[in-house]
Amino acid sequence: MSYETYFQTEREAQLAELKQWLSIPSISALSSHKEDVLSAAHWLLDTLKRAGLENIELYPTAGHPVIYADYLHAPGKPTILVYGHYDVQPVDPLNLWTTPPFEPEIRDGKLYARGATDDKGQVFMHIKAIEAILKQEGTLPVNIKLCIEGEEEIGSVHLPSFLEASKDKLAADAVLVSDTSLLERGRPAICTGLRGLCSLEVSVNTALTDLHSGSYGGGVPNALHALVSLLSSLHDDKGRVAVEGFYDGVPELSPLLREEFAKQGVDEEKIRAGLGLDQLYGEEGYSFVERVGARPTLELNGVYGGFQGEGSKTVIPKEAHAKITCRLVGDQDPQHILDVVEAHLKANIQAGAKVQVKQMEKARAFNIDPSNPILQTAADAYGKVYGTRALFTKDGGSIPIMESFSRILQAPVVLMGFGLDDENLHAPDEHFNLENFDKGLLTIVEFLKTV
Amino acid sequence: MSYETYFQTEREAQLAELKQWLSIPSISALSSHKEDVLSAAHWLLDTLKRAGLENIELYPTAGHPVIYADYLHAPGKPTILVYGHYDVQPVDPLNLWTTPPFEPEIRDGKLYARGATDDKGQVFMHIKAIEAILKQEGTLPVNIKLCIEGEEEIGSVHLPSFLEASKDKLAADAVLVSDTSLLERGRPAICTGLRGLCSLEVSVNTALTDLHSGSYGGGVPNALHALVSLLSSLHDDKGRVAVEGFYDGVPELSPLLREEFAKQGVDEEKIRAGLGLDQLYGEEGYSFVERVGARPTLELNGVYGGFQGEGSKTVIPKEAHAKITCRLVGDQDPQHILDVVEAHLKANIQAGAKVQVKQMEKARAFNIDPSNPILQTAADAYGKVYGTRALFTKDGGSIPIMESFSRILQAPVVLMGFGLDDENLHAPDEHFNLENFDKGLLTIVEFLKTV
Repeated sequence: MSYETYFQTEREAQLAELKQWLSIPSISALSSHKEDVLSAAHWLLDTLKRAGLENIELYPTAGHPVIYADYLHAPGKPTILVYGHYDVQPVDPLNLWTTPPFEPEIRDGKLYARGATDDKGQVFMHIKAIEAILKQEGTLPVNIKLCIEGEEEIGSVHLPSFLEASKDKLAADAVLVSDTSLLERGRPAICTGLRGLCSLEVSVNTALTDLHSGSYGGGVPNALHALVSLLSSLHDDKGRVAVEGFYDGVPELSPLLREEFAKQGVDEEKIRAGLGLDQLYGEEGYSFVERVGARPTLELNGVYGGFQGEGSKTVIPKEAHAKITCRLVGDQDPQHILDVVEAHLKANIQAGAKVQVKQMEKARAFNIDPSNPILQTAADAYGKVYGTRALFTKDGGSIPIMESFSRILQAPVVLMGFGLDDENLHAPDEHFNLENFDKGLLTIVEFLKTV
Repeated sequence: MSYETYFQTEREAQLAELKQWLSIPSISALSSHKEDVLSAAHWLLDTLKRAGLENIELYPTAGHPVIYADYLHAPGKPTILVYGHYDVQPVDPLNLWTTPPFEPEIRDGKLYARGATDDKGQVFMHIKAIEAILKQEGTLPVNIKLCIEGEEEIGSVHLPSFLEASKDKLAADAVLVSDTSLLERGRPAICTGLRGLCSLEVSVNTALTDLHSGSYGGGVPNALHALVSLLSSLHDDKGRVAVEGFYDGVPELSPLLREEFAKQGVDEEKIRAGLGLDQLYGEEGYSFVERVGARPTLELNGVYGGFQGEGSKTVIPKEAHAKITCRLVGDQDPQHILDVVEAHLKANIQAGAKVQVKQMEKARAFNIDPSNPILQTAADAYGKVYGTRALFTKDGGSIPIMESFSRILQAPVVLMGFGLDDENLHAPDEHFNLENFDKGLLTIVEFLKTV
């Protein structure tokens, strides 16, 4: 039967299976969920086996394990390495979810759950596409390897050393990844650039204890004042990062690249309205797609200190904290960025307060040339299923490991994403539009048959 | 027997009784503790009765009740109205308490518990001093009224209207209050000035949902950026409040007042070291006692937004919050201050973000002339017990209701405090030095017998 018919027949069973996986709260960032992450890995092992894959293995790391599987029965044909991740982001604030993050529910053709689009839903499609070809044709037209990790949301801490150690085992003609988005509904895109990432935690301390604002207010440093003043100094009033050395390695936008961005025809007014904003905001002199796709950024992800309860409390807090991530582009070196931000924080801390910085994740930006033939084949595969060929874009997100794959395995990375930007990745009510689940399965099959 | 002997004999039983009261978590700010506040009020009713007071009544208010009692059997003698409060501050961060806040424990001659010094411990002393005179002499040398409220820590919301309505019932020649501190161990003080207070909550909102910092970072407003930049604008880099109109009604420090402050001989280096600070901090051109006693301040008591868990989360938060209190001096009008701060926040909010302000408590500063004969008698009473006469000081704290007492009852307010500044008021490990419990009982007896 046609693949369309096959997937229609299997649809209900496949979605029920995916919901099982999405029910496992595999939050890699929280140590309290370590067992859940492992259980999501074991679920994956079983599913790969049932799909007909071979040499299925769980590789323990110092953190969460890597899952490997392959099917290597197409001598002389290219080898495609599928990469994805089975870990998910934390879920708070929990009260903003319409239905609980780990009780998947389909509403209006969208599957709601943490991980639905990022990335369990998209990994699942590759397994089901491979299973479909095996069931329909008895073998695969290419050699396939899968490498699915459990630490992507915490910076793929242990994957680079796994890649180095398993270079031969993982050798491939291309790395295929579905963890990005269409431009918008019906407009596929292949991402040729991803921003790098680095993260840090900042703690400000003042007195040994919290103090009464009556007895001490006005006469002692307040950790919150020191922190907000310090954090405020990280940007100028035009939205540009005000840290010396932060823009080292950031390339100027070429007229050609600006033209490519313009081609996407992004409607800023529509984005603004969709987000419920009075206006967009960012670095002066750049459009929204340029800001997100080709400019670095420094974001406060969390700030906290002092009293957060009901009512008021006249306390001068002795400590205050912030969590910061930077998105990087071009040749920005994550270690250099962490160092200059740390130096800025230490140089600008208010008298009487102390600042401590904990450096965390580090990943360089990723870029690939769209003229690569494998990328052209991928764009055609989309064209066949979606009726419109994929555009080559740059995405503002980070998949920290992409740069490692491309460097260590020396293979082109094909970012064949099926998400949508408004699917609340990393936020409450994450979901996956099932229209792209259906079309994505067909696109992957088409790509594997034509590459 | 002498009062020294009497109180020595009773000491153990009295402290056991006080510990009972301190075990009741009467946190007025948290609605979940409403029953506990009521139970602390009922405990007080019983204790007043056992002490021999009369006409004991519980006056319900829209919030927590006011307790009244009297003993009016000294015709021709002055009437003293004792004021205090039985509610306490919240207790978080709970993990910083050595022993739980509502399990009172004596260590090294200090009684540790929330409310030990502020203000249950000090209210308890008045009851026990009155009880002592009644037991020793069969009657009191003055007429006594007590008015003990349960909303002091939330701005005495309902007391002013109670005072207005009960003006005749409460009429007195002086209002006697123990809710302030000695200058330091062995150096008593009578406070002749208290700062006013106003409080507000600030909320900043941006997009409809939290956003992924990869897909949107650099292109949309971040509620935390907007908030820290806004909060940072509230002070200049010299520690002065940068809100237009904030200093309206703040008197210049007279040379005489500066001399009085200097007389206290406060050792700033000792304060700094005791707090574990590298240096003190505050408005330029003023000493520590001047900053705390006679200058207004604006403090951040809590700031929060975004991710606060373990690890990092690449989220752009859609909302962020702050809690602010201002301490006021001289003729600063709390409503005016709230209005100018609100106007400043609204005028300085970053493009693309919205700010909401909730105005809360409002209380004017309090001042009394130390030459008043009743204050002189009080200073002598301290002198007799402590061996050193009380100095007249100005305290940075606020007892919002003092100004109302003085205005509505038209009576001098005697702030005869027995706390110490380092007793962690409003902070973890609040405690009360029992040396001042012992001396305080005697000082109150001496005052009541000589006034």
